Amino acid sequence: VVESVGENVKELVEGDTVLPTFMPDCGNCIDCKSHKSNLCSKFPFKVSPWMPRYENSSRFTDLNGNTLFHFLNVSSFSEYTVLDVANVVKIDSSIPPSRACLLSCGVSTGVGAAWETAKVEQGSTVVIFGLGSIGLAVAEGARLCGASRIIGVDINPEKFQVGKNFGITEFVNSMTCKNKRVSEVINEMTSGGADYCFECVGSSSLVQEAYACCRQGWGKTITLGVDKPGSQICLDSLDVLHHGKTLMGSLFGGLKAKTHIPLLLKRYLSKELELDKFVTHEMKFEDINDAFQLLVEGKCIRCVLWMG
Amino acid sequence: VVESVGENVKELVEGDTVLPTFMPDCGNCIDCKSHKSNLCSKFPFKVSPWMPRYENSSRFTDLNGNTLFHFLNVSSFSEYTVLDVANVVKIDSSIPPSRACLLSCGVSTGVGAAWETAKVEQGSTVVIFGLGSIGLAVAEGARLCGASRIIGVDINPEKFQVGKNFGITEFVNSMTCKNKRVSEVINEMTSGGADYCFECVGSSSLVQEAYACCRQGWGKTITLGVDKPGSQICLDSLDVLHHGKTLMGSLFGGLKAKTHIPLLLKRYLSKELELDKFVTHEMKFEDINDAFQLLVEGKCIRCVLWMG
Repeated sequence: VVESVGENVKELVEGDTVLPTFMPDCGNCIDCKSHKSNLCSKFPFKVSPWMPRYENSSRFTDLNGNTLFHFLNVSSFSEYTVLDVANVVKIDSSIPPSRACLLSCGVSTGVGAAWETAKVEQGSTVVIFGLGSIGLAVAEGARLCGASRIIGVDINPEKFQVGKNFGITEFVNSMTCKNKRVSEVINEMTSGGADYCFECVGSSSLVQEAYACCRQGWGKTITLGVDKPGSQICLDSLDVLHHGKTLMGSLFGGLKAKTHIPLLLKRYLSKELELDKFVTHEMKFEDINDAFQLLVEGKCIRCVLWMG
Repeated sequence: VVESVGENVKELVEGDTVLPTFMPDCGNCIDCKSHKSNLCSKFPFKVSPWMPRYENSSRFTDLNGNTLFHFLNVSSFSEYTVLDVANVVKIDSSIPPSRACLLSCGVSTGVGAAWETAKVEQGSTVVIFGLGSIGLAVAEGARLCGASRIIGVDINPEKFQVGKNFGITEFVNSMTCKNKRVSEVINEMTSGGADYCFECVGSSSLVQEAYACCRQGWGKTITLGVDKPGSQICLDSLDVLHHGKTLMGSLFGGLKAKTHIPLLLKRYLSKELELDKFVTHEMKFEDINDAFQLLVEGKCIRCVLWMG
């Protein structure tokens, strides 16, 4: 909830309910004005302790006047924060905060990758590498787009039970493919490859597997996972030329925060987008370490933390 | 011109004027029926001495009954040939053969890459790496699509004079970029990259340069050049994720032979598509070695060879 509004800010007033988003949407640059981009060029995405509009200032202090640093523009592990208007989306105040918060990053990234980056079509076949909450959100997006087959790939067999609730129809355990590559198994299952493949782990070699099992002629491979800095995605040059496939990256699911988050929340209210199933735990902020433990053990999807 | 028609062929009769095309278009498989693919899955593209429908037969013999082998399905260095109906496009008999022949491969590949694979938009900025006839055909396609800036990259300064006739507006000689990478030069010229980059040389490292100077947010890199078998296109994994760029291959320009070649010829007849400027030489078949010499020396665009 907005406590006070800074100079030159016209789109918000005190008392508005807002969602902080790490991806800026200034609304004025060529990218924010284009329907083709979600990468604000006025405030390019970077990890910095400062507010993007006011380099070397955080505009955020504690009671004693000491500077508090920002993280990813939002600094949301806090009861109070100071945000640039480019990083704030006004939302309907009737939406529970424990559901709206899912759209600040992970869930919208996955849903958006299927919906906005890949533009998954009705009746298509989708493969998702990695069934963490991003991968499950891709499944939710693919389900909303009307995909008829959603194949989940993971090394944890428990993920298939979880995945069923997100519309995943088939499962491949990449640890039990024997002497076959997972792309070979998927090429056989799909008679030549899937329409859309999503890499949600952060492994360049899995991107190569995804590319190898997206369909010749029109298959698209979309990367969402964050691999180590410097890692390379290497594709055979003649495969690229001969097979008519596409490789695309998807940051924040290709979504423009101020345009698309309100649309997703509308679809939540109309019960199309199912956000509730992502929240497996609601915990107090002081239990944050337990929440991380659940994450490490793969025992949660999303833990919502309540401040105070 | 069709001399005789085989069994089960209904789309042609004797006397029809046709164009042979190396890319099959069977019209019946899932790919040929889809508007999204030009890669016939009934007769997948491969280099084989046989006709794709009749493996281990060429159906093509000399006067003594000895088998004559096929090359790329068309065997067009010949006065007579035997073709599968999937590799034949019926065309308007009023079109000069010396112009129609350009659309059997190279020129349609370049034009198609701009028009059908990339879908170049009005007013956009295009970069073309390599100004051979494929690169010049990309320029012609980009011009037809209404691109406002077409930047040609080559190591031969004579290509810029040639390129002007094809709508190329600016030129970068990659040999004289000093201590800068060609992608840095282009990023400066375009304030952050081009909308569409085409690699028409066949060098995986140039694909990487092309990717590096296509615009963040929506830039597309399209590969047309044929690099050595086994060569790899390597992209930084975080660049792929963070920059919203697309990598696509374009075989035969993404064109479906029977659908798109007649459309291109219609645009030739209406004087939109300028084919004449591609033909710098018309020669007799017996002078084929001279024609290859011109090609090697970069002194021709297309040499048309007349049989008999």
